[in-house]
Amino acid sequence: MPHHRHVEQHASSPEIVRDIVIGMSDGLTVPFALAAGLSGAIANPRIVVLAGIAEIAAGSIAMGLGGYLAARTDEEHYQSELQREIDETRDMPEEEVAEVRKVFQGWGLTDQEIDPIAGTICSDEKRWVDFMMKFELGLEEPDPRRALYSAATIAASYIVGGLIPLSPYMMTGSVTEGLAWSVGVTIIALFVFGYLKGRFTGTKPLKGAVQTTVIGGVAAATAFWLARMFR
Amino acid sequence: MPHHRHVEQHASSPEIVRDIVIGMSDGLTVPFALAAGLSGAIANPRIVVLAGIAEIAAGSIAMGLGGYLAARTDEEHYQSELQREIDETRDMPEEEVAEVRKVFQGWGLTDQEIDPIAGTICSDEKRWVDFMMKFELGLEEPDPRRALYSAATIAASYIVGGLIPLSPYMMTGSVTEGLAWSVGVTIIALFVFGYLKGRFTGTKPLKGAVQTTVIGGVAAATAFWLARMFR
Repeated sequence: MPHHRHVEQHASSPEIVRDIVIGMSDGLTVPFALAAGLSGAIANPRIVVLAGIAEIAAGSIAMGLGGYLAARTDEEHYQSELQREIDETRDMPEEEVAEVRKVFQGWGLTDQEIDPIAGTICSDEKRWVDFMMKFELGLEEPDPRRALYSAATIAASYIVGGLIPLSPYMMTGSVTEGLAWSVGVTIIALFVFGYLKGRFTGTKPLKGAVQTTVIGGVAAATAFWLARMFR
Repeated sequence: MPHHRHVEQHASSPEIVRDIVIGMSDGLTVPFALAAGLSGAIANPRIVVLAGIAEIAAGSIAMGLGGYLAARTDEEHYQSELQREIDETRDMPEEEVAEVRKVFQGWGLTDQEIDPIAGTICSDEKRWVDFMMKFELGLEEPDPRRALYSAATIAASYIVGGLIPLSPYMMTGSVTEGLAWSVGVTIIALFVFGYLKGRFTGTKPLKGAVQTTVIGGVAAATAFWLARMFR
């Protein structure tokens, strides 16, 4: 039954996995590339570590707090549009019924076929407003509690991801040695992470692994080359 | 006519504005916070500039290339799900008709009312498959050409945003002076940007301005404090 396999596949990538993927792919990539870039221009691994820590703090806060506030704004936007639709079904019901009919006309139904449907949908205010929110405005009700968990998961994943490329620089006195270990460890981490990301999100794991590694590699090489130039 | 005002409001925030907002809010925030953080621990403004340039390169590539590849993966995912739905309407039409009926049952329609609707929708393969994609899977067809423009816009906005907090460090010999100007310039830029973002995306401009500024400020203060601690 391909259908049921499909449904399960969707169920196996819940939102927490998506949040970990979002936080960790940036967390592995950007601090890695920053540290590699600085290694092309600076001889002191302590400075690389300092910059990496500052980046991890900045990036995790921008993603976490930024994501949280954006989600709260979405929630407020949803609520104000919802109130507007409720008001409209009361103040100009004919126009709102016409909007419902228009959705079904778009699916090729005749006016005769639409009559009972529009009647049923518009007979219940909640159903009517829900229908308008989804089909006229394309808005799904956001979950405000999830916004906080989501922001915290993304920020934590960014921090965990960022500490992987940074840790070699913390354990060595030489930037060259730190860079070599950081490149090795991070390329493995990017590959494994991309593979798992592919598995959990339903795309081809190997392809995910190669993509994630290429993005990290291109970002690091560009940062390295630019920092050399401006050194 | 609140309805029409509403539609116009949606039309006034096209995807390019959304992309500029995505790139620039991170571009203004993260390089700003990184530079401010390093200023708490390092006396040489050239190193702050180097780290900032490496960060801008890393961040813009991670967001741009990462976003582009993610969009291409979405496109492939859509196409493979589309093919699966086409196959399913051919291989097990009864189950697929039942899925269509289920959507309408969820809106409170009786079986009698559903009969003509399901008949009309399932009489045309394209319409049937489109309906399943949208209502069973909740997938909208992605635009592959837009993915490239979108990635380029996000990356360019990140670079432009990132050069604003960084430029004061380029023009001074002292980190303290660079920091003071960078904080001043960037807080104004975050405020103006947040205000415009609010106007263009339909939320309250002043609220957007305060949020954007607070995120940048918290990120910068945390990075500064952390870099001081690990100095």
